[in-house]
Amino acid sequence: MQALRIDGSTRLFGIVGSPVTQVKTPQLMNALFDASGINATCLPFDVPVNVFEPAVAGLQALGNLDGLVVTVPHKVRAMAMVDDMSDTARRVGAINVMRQQPDGTWYGDMFDGTGLVQGLTRLGFEVRGQRVKQLGAGGAGAAVAHALAEAGAASIALSDPQRELSEQLSARLNRFYPDCEARVDVDPANVAGMDLLINCSPVGMKPGDGMPASFGAFSEAMQVVDIIMTPAETPLLKHARQCGCRATNGRPMIDGQLAAFATFFGIDMPAAFPILFDAPIRT
Amino acid sequence: MQALRIDGSTRLFGIVGSPVTQVKTPQLMNALFDASGINATCLPFDVPVNVFEPAVAGLQALGNLDGLVVTVPHKVRAMAMVDDMSDTARRVGAINVMRQQPDGTWYGDMFDGTGLVQGLTRLGFEVRGQRVKQLGAGGAGAAVAHALAEAGAASIALSDPQRELSEQLSARLNRFYPDCEARVDVDPANVAGMDLLINCSPVGMKPGDGMPASFGAFSEAMQVVDIIMTPAETPLLKHARQCGCRATNGRPMIDGQLAAFATFFGIDMPAAFPILFDAPIRT
Repeated sequence: MQALRIDGSTRLFGIVGSPVTQVKTPQLMNALFDASGINATCLPFDVPVNVFEPAVAGLQALGNLDGLVVTVPHKVRAMAMVDDMSDTARRVGAINVMRQQPDGTWYGDMFDGTGLVQGLTRLGFEVRGQRVKQLGAGGAGAAVAHALAEAGAASIALSDPQRELSEQLSARLNRFYPDCEARVDVDPANVAGMDLLINCSPVGMKPGDGMPASFGAFSEAMQVVDIIMTPAETPLLKHARQCGCRATNGRPMIDGQLAAFATFFGIDMPAAFPILFDAPIRT
Repeated sequence: MQALRIDGSTRLFGIVGSPVTQVKTPQLMNALFDASGINATCLPFDVPVNVFEPAVAGLQALGNLDGLVVTVPHKVRAMAMVDDMSDTARRVGAINVMRQQPDGTWYGDMFDGTGLVQGLTRLGFEVRGQRVKQLGAGGAGAAVAHALAEAGAASIALSDPQRELSEQLSARLNRFYPDCEARVDVDPANVAGMDLLINCSPVGMKPGDGMPASFGAFSEAMQVVDIIMTPAETPLLKHARQCGCRATNGRPMIDGQLAAFATFFGIDMPAAFPILFDAPIRT
């Protein structure tokens, strides 16, 4: 794929994070711009925490910057840098994207969870009516749980080593989504009766990591999602594969988010865009 | 040429101006990065005058932005955004480039004039010992005149419709470069005895423009430089060509500046870099 040349008319997008060396958003969005023939580019912007507000304000002041994606650790503080935000962002308490509106104001939204749900749905995973067990109730977990509830999950049982995070998140879910029964489950390994197990904890990223809980054999009918991207197959996913479960890593979250970003930023998504919505990664 | 893919490790450079749609620096620097195999990219940053300081401060706060090129109308105000600058920049009273030093401070320099002189020298133009007639004593003219004096011009006769600009510039030149005789010449068309005529005025850019002065025939021995890039051949250059003079447009200024930028930013300039130091453009 021949990248478009940057010239004086190129519109700018960026992802702000600290660090940013690991981000994939520029590669994905630039492939999208290339495929769509749009003269725009997405850059990594390394924004140290101690200069977050002036750095983002400076970027927002540029006349040719149309939007920003926000990643760790800035998603909560970024709320203060927009004039308005979606209900989803308000409920989750964080944004991961902001765009400049035609009137010059900035608007934020949160696609961490909705992107995952969109990506899972495209892959044939069921969410509506499902009994969900979720590990991890931190930043990513909050976004995912809200999106699962929004998408009609029947129940969400939350386990997090910091029990107060599970309690706070389940209380918020029950307030906003009364049709979804959210609760705390102090036993992370308890997946009895569950239709969908989703890991939003970081356990499985580091080389020596095992599974995030001491699971027994899984029912073949249980869907398993690990939002970790690297390694592509965590110990949890390997176990799920060996049990015959439908399983995926975080790739559909990335793909679903890219589709959400495209819509949010007003970019036409080419129908044949090749890297989106791959088959579930089970290797 | 296959542009390098932008990823999370890509280092950032930019050109700040208002407008920026006309700039060529990103194309040139990105070709240089591609040819050198450096994971870096140069972006256009549209910085409106009313937000200059916060926007540049925000860019400087980024952890992965290594340097900025500065263009119209920000070259004078940009001096306030660096901690230190070269003697050349101090004398000219403007910077057109800034980089972050290893200690985190910012350092500015001014290559508008030195880039032109370097580019002209590579093309075989003489500067040392030459009697120069210069039209235009504004921002670009000041940078060019200082560089010509620095490079050993014997004299510089300055003509500008705003006579006080010529007077101020000649006074500064005589203070800093006592070996170069700078003076005001109220007659812009007077090129008697001159070795080098250089146009730093904007006359010749607009479609209906004629020459910047009512010149008679040029001596074939006089070198003629018009720093205008578009059109490639101004009425002045056409006249110079018809008189048999060695003549060039602003292309060597661009090429010489790019070489200066590369050195300033610590980028290895490939020996075979194809777009540098073309033959004089006389079409």
